Amino acid sequence: MKALVYKGASASPVIALEDRPQPTLQLPTDAIVKVLRTTICGTDLHILHGDVPTCPPGRVLGHEGVGEVFSAGDGVKRFKKGDKVLISCITSCATCIPCRKGLSSHCKTGGWTLGHTNDGTQAEYVRIPHADSSLHPAPKAPQGDEQGKGLVTLSDILPTGLECGVLNGKVQPGCTVAIVGAGPVGLAALMTAQLYSPRLIVMIDRDEKRLEVAKKMGATHAVIAGGGGGDDDVQTKARALTDDGEGFDTVIEAVGYPATFELCQDLVAVGGTIANVGVHGSKVDLHLEKLWGHNITITTRLVDAAATPMLLKLYEAGKLQTSSLVTHDFAFSDIVKAYDVFGKAAEHGALKLNIEM
Amino acid sequence: MKALVYKGASASPVIALEDRPQPTLQLPTDAIVKVLRTTICGTDLHILHGDVPTCPPGRVLGHEGVGEVFSAGDGVKRFKKGDKVLISCITSCATCIPCRKGLSSHCKTGGWTLGHTNDGTQAEYVRIPHADSSLHPAPKAPQGDEQGKGLVTLSDILPTGLECGVLNGKVQPGCTVAIVGAGPVGLAALMTAQLYSPRLIVMIDRDEKRLEVAKKMGATHAVIAGGGGGDDDVQTKARALTDDGEGFDTVIEAVGYPATFELCQDLVAVGGTIANVGVHGSKVDLHLEKLWGHNITITTRLVDAAATPMLLKLYEAGKLQTSSLVTHDFAFSDIVKAYDVFGKAAEHGALKLNIEM
Amino acid sequence: MKALVYKGASASPVIALEDRPQPTLQLPTDAIVKVLRTTICGTDLHILHGDVPTCPPGRVLGHEGVGEVFSAGDGVKRFKKGDKVLISCITSCATCIPCRKGLSSHCKTGGWTLGHTNDGTQAEYVRIPHADSSLHPAPKAPQGDEQGKGLVTLSDILPTGLECGVLNGKVQPGCTVAIVGAGPVGLAALMTAQLYSPRLIVMIDRDEKRLEVAKKMGATHAVIAGGGGGDDDVQTKARALTDDGEGFDTVIEAVGYPATFELCQDLVAVGGTIANVGVHGSKVDLHLEKLWGHNITITTRLVDAAATPMLLKLYEAGKLQTSSLVTHDFAFSDIVKAYDVFGKAAEHGALKLNIEM
Amino acid sequence: MKALVYKGASASPVIALEDRPQPTLQLPTDAIVKVLRTTICGTDLHILHGDVPTCPPGRVLGHEGVGEVFSAGDGVKRFKKGDKVLISCITSCATCIPCRKGLSSHCKTGGWTLGHTNDGTQAEYVRIPHADSSLHPAPKAPQGDEQGKGLVTLSDILPTGLECGVLNGKVQPGCTVAIVGAGPVGLAALMTAQLYSPRLIVMIDRDEKRLEVAKKMGATHAVIAGGGGGDDDVQTKARALTDDGEGFDTVIEAVGYPATFELCQDLVAVGGTIANVGVHGSKVDLHLEKLWGHNITITTRLVDAAATPMLLKLYEAGKLQTSSLVTHDFAFSDIVKAYDVFGKAAEHGALKLNIEM
Repeated sequence: MKALVYKGASASPVIALEDRPQPTLQLPTDAIVKVLRTTICGTDLHILHGDVPTCPPGRVLGHEGVGEVFSAGDGVKRFKKGDKVLISCITSCATCIPCRKGLSSHCKTGGWTLGHTNDGTQAEYVRIPHADSSLHPAPKAPQGDEQGKGLVTLSDILPTGLECGVLNGKVQPGCTVAIVGAGPVGLAALMTAQLYSPRLIVMIDRDEKRLEVAKKMGATHAVIAGGGGGDDDVQTKARALTDDGEGFDTVIEAVGYPATFELCQDLVAVGGTIANVGVHGSKVDLHLEKLWGHNITITTRLVDAAATPMLLKLYEAGKLQTSSLVTHDFAFSDIVKAYDVFGKAAEHGALKLNIEM
Repeated sequence: MKALVYKGASASPVIALEDRPQPTLQLPTDAIVKVLRTTICGTDLHILHGDVPTCPPGRVLGHEGVGEVFSAGDGVKRFKKGDKVLISCITSCATCIPCRKGLSSHCKTGGWTLGHTNDGTQAEYVRIPHADSSLHPAPKAPQGDEQGKGLVTLSDILPTGLECGVLNGKVQPGCTVAIVGAGPVGLAALMTAQLYSPRLIVMIDRDEKRLEVAKKMGATHAVIAGGGGGDDDVQTKARALTDDGEGFDTVIEAVGYPATFELCQDLVAVGGTIANVGVHGSKVDLHLEKLWGHNITITTRLVDAAATPMLLKLYEAGKLQTSSLVTHDFAFSDIVKAYDVFGKAAEHGALKLNIEM
Repeated sequence: MKALVYKGASASPVIALEDRPQPTLQLPTDAIVKVLRTTICGTDLHILHGDVPTCPPGRVLGHEGVGEVFSAGDGVKRFKKGDKVLISCITSCATCIPCRKGLSSHCKTGGWTLGHTNDGTQAEYVRIPHADSSLHPAPKAPQGDEQGKGLVTLSDILPTGLECGVLNGKVQPGCTVAIVGAGPVGLAALMTAQLYSPRLIVMIDRDEKRLEVAKKMGATHAVIAGGGGGDDDVQTKARALTDDGEGFDTVIEAVGYPATFELCQDLVAVGGTIANVGVHGSKVDLHLEKLWGHNITITTRLVDAAATPMLLKLYEAGKLQTSSLVTHDFAFSDIVKAYDVFGKAAEHGALKLNIEM
Repeated sequence: MKALVYKGASASPVIALEDRPQPTLQLPTDAIVKVLRTTICGTDLHILHGDVPTCPPGRVLGHEGVGEVFSAGDGVKRFKKGDKVLISCITSCATCIPCRKGLSSHCKTGGWTLGHTNDGTQAEYVRIPHADSSLHPAPKAPQGDEQGKGLVTLSDILPTGLECGVLNGKVQPGCTVAIVGAGPVGLAALMTAQLYSPRLIVMIDRDEKRLEVAKKMGATHAVIAGGGGGDDDVQTKARALTDDGEGFDTVIEAVGYPATFELCQDLVAVGGTIANVGVHGSKVDLHLEKLWGHNITITTRLVDAAATPMLLKLYEAGKLQTSSLVTHDFAFSDIVKAYDVFGKAAEHGALKLNIEM
């Protein structure tokens, strides 16, 4: 079968579409899924840049996808050959202590393994361990996504935006939300925040085009960062949208830099929450000299994908406009080209790519 | 009346027992309380050191106390002359937006005002604004605290330990808790943590005597800090007490330094919470490069004293051994001497002082 | 001043518009409010029918209204003469033990007193005890309710639908909701349920016109009750809308009869909640022989109006289409006529009436 | 192997110790457990009386036990031959929609199946489907239960008392609790309620000996039912123990009759919760004409056993005095005699029996 292989950050090329043997069942609880659609995640780019040392050269990349069960082990109860499935970015056994605590992302024999420590979904077939708890029955394509392109966003970015941003951020009816970063995950947070009817959602980014997209997707306001005024200016403009400049009940960090985390601290109201979604590469300053008495909460989270069944229900009911996150279409044979476009996302106005087999 | 007055951090002496006019009702919702017992808080020492610029010279100090209502305004409904009361360290109107959200500590016309922006409880009489929501009926002294000395700990340190440490830290039956700092507030967190039956409470401090106290008060283990091994050693010893060295579900920071906050980050388990109680004077490093994917929560809080009615019920039922926190007795006329002892707490083995009128 | 007075259930007429002395401040925490708009509640009809023995003849009725502060006692801090205000149906001191627990409806010196145990809002002026915690600043009329007629629904039915129905019923994104009863409160539950994005809201009523209204207001489905098939038929039709006929996560009872409560038990899914909103006059059967092992929750609640500040924010932001609940306009001088129309609501297609001074 | 077999409610004898073939693995996710200890539950008596029609004659009874893994299928990851295990009364797949919602008791291929729809634990060997999620590693016997007799209470009654009674009843520090019924499950609720430090736990039963046991196990008060005064008397005496006779925050029903459920309604405070644990055979009266406005919650629940891992940690730490619930010892060969004793529990002062292989 064809598979997109990571050759190493210093290799040339860094990735290549290669022939690989089709994966086979290794345990009775495994399933082999024929991939129908996949996509590329910001994390895949991190791997290409050598930022994820736990991902070795030779790995088939990809942790998102929609497919059809090709074979299922004797211990798989929920799925059989031919079933259409959504592949979760998180593989979990559902029975270890972390899984029982709701920390599937830290499953003792799972977590983020696809396209990382196991071969992934950017291939014609993929082996899914713990299939019963790591796959979901795919719903029918709803009105508004008749071609089903939006479904793949439920593999990762929609549960990530919801769990790490919206739920951790305790978004509630009538509250105020600031989202720092209007990339795919920030926009997924924007989309899922609206499930809880906040009265104000302010989107902050350096890219005007992404802010335009955000406003179409429901942001009540947009503030451009990186203008002449610096972060003080951003803070002032954003806070001015809240009552008496008190700041935001929920601030979602969807970038991953010290400067953006600093901005979040400047935006959060007394009693508010900073929900970190961004992947950080270095330590940040935390201003406890100011915040110790501000009754705030800061959360971090690797997505557990516990909300995926609920999101699937909403998707099926036509209540998630996920297809608006899909900007480009590629054939799988062109996936190297797709990586190139996704790597220059701003230039191409790219969010999520629909890569079809 | 006699009152303990802050003369200014650079004055000599810094504090003095002086004559002051007895306070009078200013609003119909005020009460004047005759103070029967008071005590000294670490925050009072911060004021003496000039660390609290919002507290001006000339201020009567003190935000803890037990007393008797001397007079009550026409708008006071819950209290009348002669009622015995506990004075909360937090004054709150109960009706502004922060108060309605449970953020009494940030009440628009209250919060921590006693002995700070208003004259306080280290005096024969004190004016209590918003009396109905800032005083509590004092219960009868229970078995185990027949003299009622322990009640004054419910003005501040018990609700602080409970709300900022235990509740924010989500202590639950069967969980593991580390408390960094065995001063009065750390011990109050230890005492109230046991209301939720954790299976492990590890106390960490540099002072062996305080660790001895902690073990008597219910800590399952104690780890001495500041030995030869450095913080790595403390982390190793403490983590070794948890399953597979996984770290603690709840870590309570009850000191207020960058190094102790750093230690907390080294102790928290995946999925755990760091509940900050310490008052910090400078920013700290937050290791998001490690913690971004560890599904942790960090909280800060100035006590709201919302739990005080519940604590009063437990105290009355004899279920809080608060008197074990009271180590010394002073007459109010000796309060300057009491400050001296409290300022050298380690030397004197001092926790809370009972200062009687 | 003019006031609508309850003369007694057996008097003739039962109500009358009479001259009454203007109320005056009795405590420093009182305010006198000049009423600008009021409305009539189902509870007022219960009083007229003699079902509320705690409401004596001679009482000025009404617990809903919008007005302007005419005078405020010395102990009132949040309001002054001239402020536009929303009057809450619940008067609360904010400081007694029930109020501190969030049970304002059971305030020791408040609760539902207006138009019940104290004179109410169907008058030119009304005295509001505990003004700081029983009034709210009125927001500007938003887009979609330029004349501000919808605001009066925030006095009672919107917080009732939200707190007693939606919050108690734990409505969450993606869940399924059945609402039994499409009267004003059932429709308020429908409106506020949508703040949490359920995937299915099935409205059940005997009145086709009300079901039409419900569908316009966002119900995904409507089931007519009282047809030939009986309740078994209603149950079957409603359950058929859920996956595998499993029943509903949330069932809201907004009628108040044994038969409708029985229907709720037939509709609730394993793990679901029945949130009772209806006022019941007799005991009901609870089928524990079936439900003991179904992991369900049943809740009852008299509205606490704790959610009113949040609802006001959403109203101001134009996110609550409250004016669609207001079907008729009357001058206050015609309030007796308004009672007549409201008493025959089905015949007139009446929901809430806008009664202007 | 030897097994205790239900012969049918009208058979004679109703149960018999018979020879049965040893069970074998049917699916790769099954395990066969050699039973070391088992016990008898009130539910087993219900079966003997013919009250559980879903349990056919010929069934091996029992859903509680401690054992050793004899063989494990290829798909079992957490257990291998020789591991000591606790058998949960609830079998669950951990992956179906009810399981993902925390409703393991309603697992689509599990729930209460042992000794009910599958052969159970009152046998030398038992087959456990979904072994990874239905077994738990057995901890070492702690101080206070050196012989490990108390562990078997964690199969069913401890999680039942905790989940259905204490957690559903929202027992919190400082609250008041009434438990109606001092049988094994009522006592398990009593034991686990103390994990949350209520200030008052009143136990109500007709049996003075059981009330004596309850007081030794931590009940602060006991009220005898069935005396001359009737339920009004019980209600009066119990309420008199609460402030102003206001009633109880939490009322746990651990009997299962209309009269005891009625008593619970008389005991619950405004704002309180009735947590039903009892198995009911007929409908009950619910007094909504009184309770509709009392802001109460009623819950029902079949145990999900989600709390079992936490209880095991507390047991291992010596913080659950489970052995005090075990009153009698039997050899498995005497299990028919054990049934006789358990069936006349009051006469024998029997709570849980330790039945050893």
